[in-house]
Formats: sequence, structure tokens, C-alpha cells
Amino acid sequence: MSHLHDEIYEQPAVVERLLREQQGKAKEIGAAIRAFKPAFVWIAARGTSDNAARYAQYLWGVHARMAVGLATPSVHTLYGSTPDLSRALVIGISQSGQSEDVRRVLSDAKEQGALTVSITNDDTSPLAQVAAYHLPLGTGKELSVAATKTYTAELAAVAMIGAALIDRPEFWQALERLPGWMRATLDSAADTPVWAERYRYMERYAVLGRGYNYCTAFEISLKIKELCYIPGEEYSEADFRHGPIAVVQPGFPVILVAPTGDTFAKQYDLLQQLHKKGAECLVVTNSTECAGLARRVLPIPADVPEWLSPIVAVIPGQVFALSLAGARGLPIDQPIGLTKVTVTE
Amino acid sequence: MSHLHDEIYEQPAVVERLLREQQGKAKEIGAAIRAFKPAFVWIAARGTSDNAARYAQYLWGVHARMAVGLATPSVHTLYGSTPDLSRALVIGISQSGQSEDVRRVLSDAKEQGALTVSITNDDTSPLAQVAAYHLPLGTGKELSVAATKTYTAELAAVAMIGAALIDRPEFWQALERLPGWMRATLDSAADTPVWAERYRYMERYAVLGRGYNYCTAFEISLKIKELCYIPGEEYSEADFRHGPIAVVQPGFPVILVAPTGDTFAKQYDLLQQLHKKGAECLVVTNSTECAGLARRVLPIPADVPEWLSPIVAVIPGQVFALSLAGARGLPIDQPIGLTKVTVTE
Repeated sequence: MSHLHDEIYEQPAVVERLLREQQGKAKEIGAAIRAFKPAFVWIAARGTSDNAARYAQYLWGVHARMAVGLATPSVHTLYGSTPDLSRALVIGISQSGQSEDVRRVLSDAKEQGALTVSITNDDTSPLAQVAAYHLPLGTGKELSVAATKTYTAELAAVAMIGAALIDRPEFWQALERLPGWMRATLDSAADTPVWAERYRYMERYAVLGRGYNYCTAFEISLKIKELCYIPGEEYSEADFRHGPIAVVQPGFPVILVAPTGDTFAKQYDLLQQLHKKGAECLVVTNSTECAGLARRVLPIPADVPEWLSPIVAVIPGQVFALSLAGARGLPIDQPIGLTKVTVTE
Repeated sequence: MSHLHDEIYEQPAVVERLLREQQGKAKEIGAAIRAFKPAFVWIAARGTSDNAARYAQYLWGVHARMAVGLATPSVHTLYGSTPDLSRALVIGISQSGQSEDVRRVLSDAKEQGALTVSITNDDTSPLAQVAAYHLPLGTGKELSVAATKTYTAELAAVAMIGAALIDRPEFWQALERLPGWMRATLDSAADTPVWAERYRYMERYAVLGRGYNYCTAFEISLKIKELCYIPGEEYSEADFRHGPIAVVQPGFPVILVAPTGDTFAKQYDLLQQLHKKGAECLVVTNSTECAGLARRVLPIPADVPEWLSPIVAVIPGQVFALSLAGARGLPIDQPIGLTKVTVTE
């Protein structure tokens, strides 16, 4: 077995521990944010962590009414400028905490008087050190190059800070159920190595999501690229209709992340359109309505609320990417051309 | 000849007219922004216009020190919420001005007291009507489904508002030279239909840019997808190194947008790495250093400043997408499965 396999299956326990050990810290950060009253939120991140930032854009946007923008670190590092971040909550998310450009955004922001928070898996990292508040992920060392448990832990951290900001008990109650939903999803995915064989020679694909699960589309696609070296695309359902849908021919593989909730009707409509075009659709969903239109449904538990679904819905995609890399005979833990820690400047 | 061909070649005249007719309006908007003192900028856009928004993130971030975030319209339309935009400058960019979700972000923001600006090609559109200020692109009707002249006009509008904010004469002086640089670039691209033949059977690609030209990577890729139905990827140079570079095999076609300036060293370093991997690199640049590493250099004029280069550097990509669609025998003005106006909700 690979480290990646183990780390994917560790995820429920990792999130369980994070919820237990860092709830107090999340509430402390929530209180600091409420006291600071930021005009907006600015998140610096790269790669997988960028997808955690996308989750915050929707979760905090919808439920905490915060405008969450993604930082453009090269404004700082390559152009030697700094936007005015004095009234912002500035958050750095990085598994390793080693990205120099993410650290730089936070240190520039802190100098201007911004409220700074870091979310990393390494308490001693430069990013953890620079921020006024640090939420440690505590996942244990991630040995596989492709991030999985640190990704879902980052999302859970975003959800916990969100719950602290929203401050309604049902959000914390739902979070308590999250590890169980993740376990059930892993159980449902047990046969993935068998059916993933069909995609051994897949040469392209698209992954689509919207709203909370825009991040899930990006993250599933990134795992397939990192592990299987297959070029693919990731889009919001809205943007996909706005142009790229032109590439869909019969047999074109599409992974659609379509949990029940406020975005489902749009996603379902797109699924119908893709089905009509003869696309081959794999649908991550807890709806019973997709079966007739999908080649295969990748199920998540029925009662997962949409706002928490990204932490669950990414799992079938992780298992698919792992299984497909296996079917293609590729190295799982050390994909060619990748390194675990990228120190982007 | 196609409408698309005509519209690509009209671009210098369109931008020339925009500079002449809307300089006063851009300065008026710049003055309103300075008076409002926004805490941040929030831009709502879709598709091609989203790429114009990306240009504003860097140009206004670097030179006007504004934090520019991209709106998440589905927070408004699908989740029925609104982030707090009361201290924001909120801009809607849309060729048609018909996108309901972009209009909705502006109308929600206006209700909260935000300063609102629209940039559209239709003065009578819902988006133009809702905003406090409107900058009309005045490109004349765009008949081809794939946007070209409205894209460069949107970029020029962003640059003009930027020049008004920055308020240094050299920015306006450089803008005056823009139509000439665009004409020279079109002249240099005259043989594209000949050499584009080589890519007749290209099945995938990546387009890479960084900083100001992050938008250019996205826009060139979008044109290839829209016109040629080839699935491809677009990345910042930093993110590409952070994972997706794993997909590069010998012969993998990469379009690198690498004008001289603050991002060039990084792009050049990546070009060397791609060359070593045997990638087939087409490089949009005004540097003389890339020739040995590129399959082909797609030249832009030597003296284009980096901050204005996106309005010039996209042109070789537009001409390439047009030429490739021709080589593949595809309909140019009415790509299959696309409509000109998308009314996203």
C-alpha cells in the first residue's frame, strides 16, 4: 500500500482530532475577527491550499457576509508593491508554511495593521511565525507528495473559523458529524479500483462544480493531474457553459460535483445537457436523481449539508485519482516532476 | 474572410477610438474612486471579461495599491446572500451587459452604498443602467461569437482607469502608443496561418503567464478552446511548477507569455525547464533571449512596457486560434455549442 492510500483513509480521524483539539483556537480567531471588523478578507495560498481558500470565499461569503478575495502574491514579490491591506483580515494557508510569497503577503499586511491568521501543518514554519494567530492542522506528517489529509484539514479549519464567525450551534453540530460522513464516503468508494480500470486510457477530462464545491472541482482535477499526468480542466458550471462546453464530444469524461442544495438545480440541468451530448459523466452526489444520466454515481451520505459537502465530496475524487494512477502503473507517492514543498517566490 | 478575422484586425482602431473618446470618462471615474477611498475593489465578470478583471488585479494592485478581488456572483444569485460591499469599489465588466448575475452583484452593492462602475459595449444594457458610472467600450457590434475586440477594449478601459488613478503622465503617454504596438504585432503575425498548420492535430496544450499576463494565458487558452475545441490548461508560471508540470512530456505544446519586465526572469527559467523536458514552446515575447529555447517566437514590439503588454500579447494568440480553427476546417464565427450572449443566473 502507498502512503497516499493511508493518508486518504486517515482523513476522518485527522478531522476528528482537529475538531477536538482546535475548536477553542478557532473560536479565539473568530472573536478576534469580530473585534477587528475587517472590511474584507484576503487569502494567500498556492496549489491545493488555493482550493481551501476558494471554499472560504463561498462559506464565509454566504454565511458570514464577508467579501473574500484571493491574494495575488506576485504583486508583492515580483513587482515589489503592496496593495492597501490595512483594513483586511489576511489569511495565509499552506501545508508546509514554507511558501515565501504567501509569507510575504502576510508580513506586508501585518506591517500595515491588518489582522493576520495562518493555517499550516507546521507550527515552526515561517508562515506560522509571522501571523498574529495560527491554527495548526496537526495532521501528522504527510508523506505522499499529493496532498489529501492536509487539504481536508485545511477545509475543516476554514469551516471551524466559519462556524465561530457564524456562531449558530447547528454549524458546530454538523461539524461533529463530519468524520462519520467522511468514513461512510470512504466505505462507498471501496470498489473504485475496479471500475476505475475503464479510464486507464482516458486522455482528457473536465471536472465541474459550483459555489461551495467550486474548490472541489479544482482539487479533484489537481489530484488527477498530479497522480496520473492527464491534462484536464476544471470549471464552475456557469463558466463551463460560457464557452468551454464546446470541447465536449461523445465519450468526453466529465466529473460533476453535484451535492443537493442551492446549486443542485443548475448542476442537474448541466448534467442533462452533457448527457444529451453523449458525455461520460461521473457524478459525485447525494441526490437520487442523477443515476439515469450518469455513467456512475459516486455517492456521499444523504444528509451532508451543502456547506460542509466539499470536505466529503472531494474524497471519491481522491480515491479515483489514486485508483487511476494504480491502473496506469504510475508511482503513487512520488509523482514524476513534483516536490512536496514548493518555495514559490 | 470571417467576422473574427476582421474583428481581430480592427482592434488597433477600436482602442485608438476608445482612448480618444473615453479619456474624459476614465478620468471622471478615477476622480470618483479617489474621492470614495474604497477599502478594496470587487469585480464581477464571466468568461473573457473575467480575464479583463484579472488584468485589473495586477495593474491596480501594483500601481494604485488597490486590493482587487474577483466577485463570486453565485453567493448572491444561488445562495441568496450578499457579502458586505459597503466600503468597496464594485465593477461589472461584460461585453453584452446582459449577465444577470453580474448585474445582481452591482445592484446589491449599490444598495449597500458601494461605488459602482460598469464597463460594457452596450449603453442600454441592464448592467450599464444599474451602475453609478459607465464606461462604454464603443467597439461597434461584435459579430463573431469568440470575443476579441471587446476583450482588448475591456483591457484598455481597465488601463485607462488605471492611468487615471495612478495619475502620472507617462502612463497616458504609453497608452497613446498602444494602437501602434497592436498594429505592429498584427503585422508580425501575418505568417501564422502557414506555421499553424503544424498544430493541426494538436490534442492538448498549456498556456502560461504570470502577473499582468496571467490574464493573457487564460484568454489565449479560452480562444483555442472556443474556436478549436481542444482541451487545454492555463496557469500562472508559479502554479504550474506547483503540480501540473507533471503532465509535460516531450512534444507537449506550451504557449508561454513572457514579455520583458519584472516577471521575465521567472518565465525564462520555466522556459529552460520546459525546453529540457522536450516541450514544444511557442513564446510570446519581446525578448531576444528566448529564440534558442522556443520552437517559435511570437513577437511583440521591443518597447512595450510590461504593464501594457497584455493588450498586445494576446494578439498572437488570437491569430493562432483563428489560424488553427482554419487549419482544422472549423466554423470560425459560430463555433458549435456556443452563443454570443450568456445570461448566467
